[in-house]
Amino acid sequence: MKKIVILGASGSIGTQTLDVVKQHPSALRCLGISVGQNIPWLFEHLKNHHYDLVVVQDEFDAKSLALFYPNQTFSFGSEGLVELACLNDAEVVVNALVGFAGLVPTLKAIEAKKDIALANKETLVVAGEMVMAKVHEHQVNLRPIDSEHSAILQALQGNDFKAVKRLIVTASGGSFRDKTREELREVTVEDALKHPNWSMGKKITIDSATLVNKAFEVIEAHHLFNLPYEQIDVIVHKQSIIHSMVEYIDGSIMAQLGTPDMRVPIQYALCGPERLALDTKGLDFNAISQLDFKALDTDFYPLFPLIISAAKQGGNRMCVVNAANEAAIQLFLNNGIKYLSIETIIEDCLNHFPYASNLDIEQMVELDAKVKDYVLHQHKELS
Amino acid sequence: MKKIVILGASGSIGTQTLDVVKQHPSALRCLGISVGQNIPWLFEHLKNHHYDLVVVQDEFDAKSLALFYPNQTFSFGSEGLVELACLNDAEVVVNALVGFAGLVPTLKAIEAKKDIALANKETLVVAGEMVMAKVHEHQVNLRPIDSEHSAILQALQGNDFKAVKRLIVTASGGSFRDKTREELREVTVEDALKHPNWSMGKKITIDSATLVNKAFEVIEAHHLFNLPYEQIDVIVHKQSIIHSMVEYIDGSIMAQLGTPDMRVPIQYALCGPERLALDTKGLDFNAISQLDFKALDTDFYPLFPLIISAAKQGGNRMCVVNAANEAAIQLFLNNGIKYLSIETIIEDCLNHFPYASNLDIEQMVELDAKVKDYVLHQHKELS
Repeated sequence: MKKIVILGASGSIGTQTLDVVKQHPSALRCLGISVGQNIPWLFEHLKNHHYDLVVVQDEFDAKSLALFYPNQTFSFGSEGLVELACLNDAEVVVNALVGFAGLVPTLKAIEAKKDIALANKETLVVAGEMVMAKVHEHQVNLRPIDSEHSAILQALQGNDFKAVKRLIVTASGGSFRDKTREELREVTVEDALKHPNWSMGKKITIDSATLVNKAFEVIEAHHLFNLPYEQIDVIVHKQSIIHSMVEYIDGSIMAQLGTPDMRVPIQYALCGPERLALDTKGLDFNAISQLDFKALDTDFYPLFPLIISAAKQGGNRMCVVNAANEAAIQLFLNNGIKYLSIETIIEDCLNHFPYASNLDIEQMVELDAKVKDYVLHQHKELS
Repeated sequence: MKKIVILGASGSIGTQTLDVVKQHPSALRCLGISVGQNIPWLFEHLKNHHYDLVVVQDEFDAKSLALFYPNQTFSFGSEGLVELACLNDAEVVVNALVGFAGLVPTLKAIEAKKDIALANKETLVVAGEMVMAKVHEHQVNLRPIDSEHSAILQALQGNDFKAVKRLIVTASGGSFRDKTREELREVTVEDALKHPNWSMGKKITIDSATLVNKAFEVIEAHHLFNLPYEQIDVIVHKQSIIHSMVEYIDGSIMAQLGTPDMRVPIQYALCGPERLALDTKGLDFNAISQLDFKALDTDFYPLFPLIISAAKQGGNRMCVVNAANEAAIQLFLNNGIKYLSIETIIEDCLNHFPYASNLDIEQMVELDAKVKDYVLHQHKELS
């Protein structure tokens, strides 16, 4: 029986994690959850569930809910999140928060010797070295909840890591893969949110369209598997059936394939390498008929090489990129800027904020806020 | 340092095994080889190699070679093969013989407690239960040299076998996959020997065209992995890039991919799960562009369901099928019958030779000879 808590329980990953827990009552138990502002969901959910701790964003919500559920303990805000991440009996913290907000709870959970099941990729993107150093220091496991990294983990299973030649991360190409650069000028938020293969949260769907998501995944893989960027390749595979691959020095490539069901990597992060039966729809090869591959077109996706190059520079570069990206997406989703401005904003921020290294966590939090503030004020009227 | 002997060293698998040995002088050493009738090859090969034992088919060849290589020990015939299979210092016997002839040396090697690297699939097809029982009795390892079974072995690596849902064996469809049944009436030996993806021996290339090879692989997988036929599926994948797959109960499918280089499964059979660097050409996904899948058309390949059904009946059925197939291919290669007569011959033999069970090895050898004799005499003029 593994005891878990879920940060970000009402989102796409959070609800699917709850479903995995429900399917394996003898293997998994959820002790606590956090929810941001989706109080209607939480209100309904608590009718049938009781937790050791429930955390929401606002104090008002916590207090209101407590009136309806007097036997349930509530907490709130960033302190509540840390409290949940460090909950005494929890063994695994599922971090399904969106964006930079996921970083501090991850660090605190690691310090409290919790294993981490990480869906929040910004944690490793912004502070990969710091996080992995803490993982080793406190000897905890950090396992990815991401179809790509889960595929790599599965393709590494039972193999000697020294025999790895390279990782091959597959990319669907996102919502706009069949458009021209010219057409990208006029795409709408609605267009951007139509991912061809996966049903996901808004931010990650936009990140998939810009390929920021794929750049982040490469960076995440670099930290998770401790491999240089030169050994991590990306290939466009529009069906998203092969979730990623590992090539070995003997010429063999091991791949993990499946339907686009995030519960598979969630379950693998929680229970792997053990595989438990899941009520997922198996792949039907007769229905698939074909899998396509093509090289990544970096002219079409200029943010990909820009971000990988920033990641190689290290220091504060990815903190700047990530904050700029989060703020730009927020503006785009609110129809404040055009789609292609996401690119110019990230580039501008990399120029505007000078390189610095060895940031501690407080300096990162400060820089994150400064960059976001800069974007929201400078670029609001850029579109 | 693993010491091996190779039965059938001058064939496609044999020469590639020698190449693998050559690439890893500190990991592998070949103590002895056998060659059938390819004496010119052997004569050249022995100029640069010395073995503890060299076996040929005919006594005359053994004696002639001994005149040229007086410091080399030679032996001959089926007794020589068994002598080689049981060679004292050898740890692994690579069985790259073609056809039923591979069975007895395999059994003798197992009894002599040698591990087996098995390219001779007829061994398991004809006598799977007997062979696997001996493998367990003598506690040796039997590892497949076959891209499909090697892929399955690799896809099982590090996983609990109890979590396997099914094996998915890929099939290229063979030389005639783009023809109609009508066109098959007039195909020639030359046409049949043009395999679209793999460069292999003649017999296996014909078996690929008729899909007998795929039926044999399913039967081999059934014995090797101890799974019922209902858990072994075949899918047509014409590029032969995905060599086979394992589907697990959590919905994940693990696949092994690679170029059509038999040295990869040979090396994995000898050294796996350890992976050693091999000078093989890696897969270039940009060059692949697409992978296709379609259901197996059993109307086009009637031998596939016929043979699987015979295998399920067990007893002497697969001994009859295999002998009929070997004899029919011999006739076809000698232009004695038409291509489609391979089908009618196998079907006829299954009807002609009555079902019997619990055959011992002598009875199998006898039945094999009887069936072949029947085919060669009955069907010679059938075309």
